[in-house]
Amino acid sequence: MLVVMHKRATAEDIAQVVRAIEARGYSARPIQGGERMAIGVLHNRGPVDPNWILSLAGVKEAIPVTRPYKLVSREFHAQDTVVPVGDVRIGNGSLVLIAGPCAVESEEQALTIARQVKRAGAHLFRGGAFKPRTSPYAFQGLGEKALKILDRVRQETGLPIVTEALDHTVYDLVEEVADVVQIGARNMQNFTLLRRAGQSSKPVLLKRGMAATLEEWLMAAEYILEGGNPHVILCERGIRTFTAHSRNTLDLSAVPVVRKESHLPILVDPSHACGRRDQVIPLSRAAVAVGANGLMVEVHHRPDEALSDGAQSLYPEQFQRLCEEIAPLAQLFARVPELERADLSPSLAAIS
Amino acid sequence: MLVVMHKRATAEDIAQVVRAIEARGYSARPIQGGERMAIGVLHNRGPVDPNWILSLAGVKEAIPVTRPYKLVSREFHAQDTVVPVGDVRIGNGSLVLIAGPCAVESEEQALTIARQVKRAGAHLFRGGAFKPRTSPYAFQGLGEKALKILDRVRQETGLPIVTEALDHTVYDLVEEVADVVQIGARNMQNFTLLRRAGQSSKPVLLKRGMAATLEEWLMAAEYILEGGNPHVILCERGIRTFTAHSRNTLDLSAVPVVRKESHLPILVDPSHACGRRDQVIPLSRAAVAVGANGLMVEVHHRPDEALSDGAQSLYPEQFQRLCEEIAPLAQLFARVPELERADLSPSLAAIS
Amino acid sequence: MLVVMHKRATAEDIAQVVRAIEARGYSARPIQGGERMAIGVLHNRGPVDPNWILSLAGVKEAIPVTRPYKLVSREFHAQDTVVPVGDVRIGNGSLVLIAGPCAVESEEQALTIARQVKRAGAHLFRGGAFKPRTSPYAFQGLGEKALKILDRVRQETGLPIVTEALDHTVYDLVEEVADVVQIGARNMQNFTLLRRAGQSSKPVLLKRGMAATLEEWLMAAEYILEGGNPHVILCERGIRTFTAHSRNTLDLSAVPVVRKESHLPILVDPSHACGRRDQVIPLSRAAVAVGANGLMVEVHHRPDEALSDGAQSLYPEQFQRLCEEIAPLAQLFARVPELERADLSPSLAAIS
Amino acid sequence: MLVVMHKRATAEDIAQVVRAIEARGYSARPIQGGERMAIGVLHNRGPVDPNWILSLAGVKEAIPVTRPYKLVSREFHAQDTVVPVGDVRIGNGSLVLIAGPCAVESEEQALTIARQVKRAGAHLFRGGAFKPRTSPYAFQGLGEKALKILDRVRQETGLPIVTEALDHTVYDLVEEVADVVQIGARNMQNFTLLRRAGQSSKPVLLKRGMAATLEEWLMAAEYILEGGNPHVILCERGIRTFTAHSRNTLDLSAVPVVRKESHLPILVDPSHACGRRDQVIPLSRAAVAVGANGLMVEVHHRPDEALSDGAQSLYPEQFQRLCEEIAPLAQLFARVPELERADLSPSLAAIS
Repeated sequence: MLVVMHKRATAEDIAQVVRAIEARGYSARPIQGGERMAIGVLHNRGPVDPNWILSLAGVKEAIPVTRPYKLVSREFHAQDTVVPVGDVRIGNGSLVLIAGPCAVESEEQALTIARQVKRAGAHLFRGGAFKPRTSPYAFQGLGEKALKILDRVRQETGLPIVTEALDHTVYDLVEEVADVVQIGARNMQNFTLLRRAGQSSKPVLLKRGMAATLEEWLMAAEYILEGGNPHVILCERGIRTFTAHSRNTLDLSAVPVVRKESHLPILVDPSHACGRRDQVIPLSRAAVAVGANGLMVEVHHRPDEALSDGAQSLYPEQFQRLCEEIAPLAQLFARVPELERADLSPSLAAIS
Repeated sequence: MLVVMHKRATAEDIAQVVRAIEARGYSARPIQGGERMAIGVLHNRGPVDPNWILSLAGVKEAIPVTRPYKLVSREFHAQDTVVPVGDVRIGNGSLVLIAGPCAVESEEQALTIARQVKRAGAHLFRGGAFKPRTSPYAFQGLGEKALKILDRVRQETGLPIVTEALDHTVYDLVEEVADVVQIGARNMQNFTLLRRAGQSSKPVLLKRGMAATLEEWLMAAEYILEGGNPHVILCERGIRTFTAHSRNTLDLSAVPVVRKESHLPILVDPSHACGRRDQVIPLSRAAVAVGANGLMVEVHHRPDEALSDGAQSLYPEQFQRLCEEIAPLAQLFARVPELERADLSPSLAAIS
Repeated sequence: MLVVMHKRATAEDIAQVVRAIEARGYSARPIQGGERMAIGVLHNRGPVDPNWILSLAGVKEAIPVTRPYKLVSREFHAQDTVVPVGDVRIGNGSLVLIAGPCAVESEEQALTIARQVKRAGAHLFRGGAFKPRTSPYAFQGLGEKALKILDRVRQETGLPIVTEALDHTVYDLVEEVADVVQIGARNMQNFTLLRRAGQSSKPVLLKRGMAATLEEWLMAAEYILEGGNPHVILCERGIRTFTAHSRNTLDLSAVPVVRKESHLPILVDPSHACGRRDQVIPLSRAAVAVGANGLMVEVHHRPDEALSDGAQSLYPEQFQRLCEEIAPLAQLFARVPELERADLSPSLAAIS
Repeated sequence: MLVVMHKRATAEDIAQVVRAIEARGYSARPIQGGERMAIGVLHNRGPVDPNWILSLAGVKEAIPVTRPYKLVSREFHAQDTVVPVGDVRIGNGSLVLIAGPCAVESEEQALTIARQVKRAGAHLFRGGAFKPRTSPYAFQGLGEKALKILDRVRQETGLPIVTEALDHTVYDLVEEVADVVQIGARNMQNFTLLRRAGQSSKPVLLKRGMAATLEEWLMAAEYILEGGNPHVILCERGIRTFTAHSRNTLDLSAVPVVRKESHLPILVDPSHACGRRDQVIPLSRAAVAVGANGLMVEVHHRPDEALSDGAQSLYPEQFQRLCEEIAPLAQLFARVPELERADLSPSLAAIS
């Protein structure tokens, strides 16, 4: 339920609506728009009867929100969320490129790749310190040592750092170094981890689970926003299907649907989607053309020696070519997705 | 098995190799390359021992073909197949646009839409005469009457016609009018229909089945080529997955993989892939950017009154916008896919 | 819409309702129940207004049918359909076993296997004469020669024959020999074939397509019933999923759902579902326990030499063991599924 | 790699092999069989060369293990693992029934249901204290209060308790009360949680992730065994597919495959698989018939008022009927699955 106040509603009117909502055991979340105030009703189970709300002073409308998610919804927040990461802005219409190896393997490896991807045009550096691995016998990441290397990479190159937190207890450590904390696909519904991310002041990159519906994904983001952290960046990385020619199937229609349903920025990770180097560049072009806010791509200078995900890592010169190919695209389509959600309901668009 | 002959091999050498292959119960298919001849070995079950072939006069190499498909494979035919349809060329690097309604409903409807899509930039007109419908009680198409209307549309607008043949007995009728005969997703493994298409002189547009692997799809095309018709156009139209935000999941990685594996042109049908109007334009941009040879899009001037698939049909003005958005893309990426299959084995590239 | 007549309704009342329905462009299908008559309204697009029907003489109720399928629905026909095949009854509570090789390869092979499966307890013999094959180079079946062998098998063993018709033109030939004509998974939405089956007097075994929803499957059966052939036997054979440990995933919950939604009998084919011999017996037990009306199982005396599907064919002694294992199960659960659809609406149960 | 020692190998021979393995940076895990010792080689990346091992004193064979999992594999441990839970034995051939509500809602609710399911025949009681919920606004479980109620239930009824640990920090609390700690489907690849479970002395019930392959699932169990806890009970609960008639698709072929590949017991949860009450009993019968070691079923005395999963919970009288229906089945098939893995390689069967 979204309660829209009259322009002339007083502060006391608003406070009274909040009290009335809370008296019924719900939470009230005031949302300041340009000309008027709206108040979100949260924590209700099932639909809320609008009648008692409409009878309160200063209330103009009570709009039932049909989506199970609220804070992540465009119904609640019509304008694009722009996530600031250092000097970079994610979600403001320009294309953001995140690149780097699957895992940090050594300072020399990380610095070499970071310098190469920076030169080619990357805006952020990615590299895993703690790696989720299917096998307990596989390389699990360098851990804290990798975090120190990532810190060094930022100092040397100026690139902000994206790295994954595998659980809520390691979050403190990761958060200290990371500019953006990644939550991986396997952890998309690790609710303890989502709650911890909600208490962080660092932006969160939330990957879609490999069998998650868009609704489940947005609900996972809702956990983080509900906890108080508004800076969530979504990342589509392919879903599990019957196909064999790629590791997963990149679901690009998720991009326009998410941009319509939610105000959060959405990136695409073509590397994990396909799992094969020779599909990464074409899928990157497609992701930019479909309207994604950016890309996250794996790059390694010696992929055949990589300790993980070598087969899907681009050579630095391929990443360079990718940057060149998408540059004109990014310009062409910077403004397009905005047009595509022009059919937002006017009453909602008006309030925020 | 592909037998590559020496440049200096004589016609008699070649004839002898053909006889030797046939003597073992296989079929031999000579393939004329620029400088030399190659001979494909077909209808073998399991691998063919190369030794007896290598001992024949004029034989340079005997290359085992590891794919189950042969005639559709780049291993057999390294250069892109270009399918001529009237003045249009499908697969030559320019982008082909096929547009029109799901079904032909009346002459007035078909002509109205045809003029509109032509003006916007379509190269071919699509419209169903015989419709495969899940329900026996749903509109099944106007049949022969629709074929006459399509003929009229071509005369009026000059647009070549794409329309579906539902079975092999109706093929004669459809083939007479159609410039390209479509085989639908549900019929992708209707082998009698595929054999009939193999005997036709008209190009065939073969849609991917909604649960088909790329291998099964290329094998279906193999039926048509094996029958003697080299002009097959593939069309990706989404696969069935667990997702609910789109009717199917468009599998764009199929495009670079098919272009690497096969010489046949590949289109994308974003309308059936998503089933919802507001995803068609972004997915169209993505399909062009990924390297498809063209698009097939549903357009209807009154989609709310359409007898089928109204929810996914673009309004003519949306199709116009689509054409404008993809025009710069088509130029940018016309040559790119060629680069992406640069790793074809040199010996094969040499022979054709 | 199902129009339920009063017990006291006259033949003229009924005729008048039929005329009224037809006058609106719909079809009327009278259904004789034990005590009263009901009339199905077919070929309507969208819901039918019940008011004009209720005003007619002799009409008791007009029940809107919410399912897209009608003739196959329990709403239209509450009692189990029992399909007679020679002396066998499919759907009457006893368990039916269909066994035999994937393809007929020779008279000796077919007779050998037929005798063995008969001895073990099979009620019908299966064997392909025309085989749908992914590859044009694979064994396509012996065709008419196989039909003659199948005829011989029936004469020798007395087992009724199940064999597949690949298309509507070969239907005449197949129908002459087969006691049950099979429509394969790839042809589940070959609507021309379904219409041809609707005109046949022979029972049809309709396999579920590998990506078909239950609704699509029942709609395919609806084509056959709508054409006039009431004897359709459904067969679940696994759906395509991401799993790799079996070729398809057997969807056993389809059995209770189909039995609740439809009056048609449903069999399970564990051989095609799993594609691996060692899963066939456990899945067979599960299929019987879940309430299937029977099984269709591939058996071959020399599976390693089979021209198709050898890996999933049971040895005759394994089929013997299967029969022994399921015998007590079949007795235990013969009556159970009936209980499970006890919640059919009483007004419907009353009329038929 | 599994190193099989000669019967006459001395303790020193064995110690030397262990040292040799460790000297190469691998781990050695001695496995005592009836007549001889075997030594597993762990933590190797890629295949291990057998030659240097075969040259050591007392070594009979060095068997390459082709599976990525080791400790969970029948290749390493040929006999069924039997997990003791109070007086219950899971995996010993008798059928184990776990029943109870999705979530503990109150002491009165838990006790009422516990008494009812015990009377019907349940061996363990299930009830969630901490609930993983898609929405942050949904009921999240009573937490510690629920653990106290569960403790009370055990005291009152004597039924051992199964309840879920949502993360590794809550594990201490849960472990204190639970007799079996459940790891849910969404947490199947929560590796921190798996490692914590590996350090526990309580048995673990590990549900299959809804898009997990069997290999990924067994690898998740491997984490727990590798950590030192041998008591893992697997639980199949349905996979995500395109179907709509059930919430997930129960993958029963997983049961025979897991029993062949692994020595761990495997249960089936039909409630979460289908999500609809009327499919639970037929799927339960199928699960028993396919060879599962037990069932986990949701039961609620007032499902319409349940705070979660009401639609799939059986009424107590339905659970009673389920118990009656499966009782004869459980007897019929207690010994069957053992026969089905008779083709284990003899050398492996011999050592353990």
